[in-house]
Amino acid sequence: MRLLEERILADGKVRPGGVLKVDGFLNNMMDMELFQALADQWYEAFQNDGVNKILTIEASGIGLACFAGLAFHCPVLFAQKTTPKHIAGSVYTTRVESFTHGNIYDVIVAKEYLRPEDRVLLIDDFLANGAALDGLCDLVRQAGATLVGAGIAVEKCFQPGGERLRARGLLFQLGQHGRDRGDHHCRRD
Amino acid sequence: MRLLEERILADGKVRPGGVLKVDGFLNNMMDMELFQALADQWYEAFQNDGVNKILTIEASGIGLACFAGLAFHCPVLFAQKTTPKHIAGSVYTTRVESFTHGNIYDVIVAKEYLRPEDRVLLIDDFLANGAALDGLCDLVRQAGATLVGAGIAVEKCFQPGGERLRARGLLFQLGQHGRDRGDHHCRRD
Repeated sequence: MRLLEERILADGKVRPGGVLKVDGFLNNMMDMELFQALADQWYEAFQNDGVNKILTIEASGIGLACFAGLAFHCPVLFAQKTTPKHIAGSVYTTRVESFTHGNIYDVIVAKEYLRPEDRVLLIDDFLANGAALDGLCDLVRQAGATLVGAGIAVEKCFQPGGERLRARGLLFQLGQHGRDRGDHHCRRD
Repeated sequence: MRLLEERILADGKVRPGGVLKVDGFLNNMMDMELFQALADQWYEAFQNDGVNKILTIEASGIGLACFAGLAFHCPVLFAQKTTPKHIAGSVYTTRVESFTHGNIYDVIVAKEYLRPEDRVLLIDDFLANGAALDGLCDLVRQAGATLVGAGIAVEKCFQPGGERLRARGLLFQLGQHGRDRGDHHCRRD
């Protein structure tokens, strides 16, 4: 998406080690017009797929997911990285290894909110090694729900997440949307 | 706000110990139409106060804050509960004691994103003992920014957060908006 490309060129900051910081508009301080534009793209890509639930992972995916929820007129569920005491009842659990942060954590969603009849669109800000997206896919599988696809703001193409997701037989096909090189979506075959 | 009241009566669940669970529409699976309606109320209350930044705290405040950001046409910043490795540079830090979760954690925002010229509206899903809101107020104070007020979806009136915030001389006046008993806003005197 040209808007995101332009924003990265204008306000992205390259840190030592080749890290691209987009904290100023994507994943800490968040630009609502950019988010709206991304959600519009995802809606255009998946509007005929019967999406009735958006699933993301806390924390920086939540804002993007909410705009997707607004576009699709459906609820937004976020997977939690720990087990807060106030969640009673049964949950689906999966384990995610974060290469970025160098840790392993459990990710949960309440079973009552992810149902076999759900048609789920995953939303996240980044796809790097794909560990978080793997985890979300696994939660959808455990629930017996239908995985429609995934909308990702930025794929780090130099990291193996996208390729690994395809190679694992998850039947993903990562594509480009129009002239967009920043906004990716994954579609189940 | 009547919509929120009705939703709590319809879908809120009372758990043992008198805990009211609103996870199904407010702070885990999120209802976008409800969020839009809450943001509309906050916009109505603060539209003349020159708000140019929304500040919330991860994770469950982010969705609400994004809708507020959309209403006010301004960026949304979320305070982070830990110090991720990818945040370089200087941050404002405050300490929050969570009575709900029984732990103490540091909360940070990057100095570059919270500026003296900012007029900040705080947004959060709950006000219970007020510890998180205290922390956000402290971050705004450290930045030398102007605290316009706070929009809270649900105040737990049986817990002392609202009263304590006023008693601390933060010049808050917690009010009701119209006939609304669910949607509170705090206004700086």
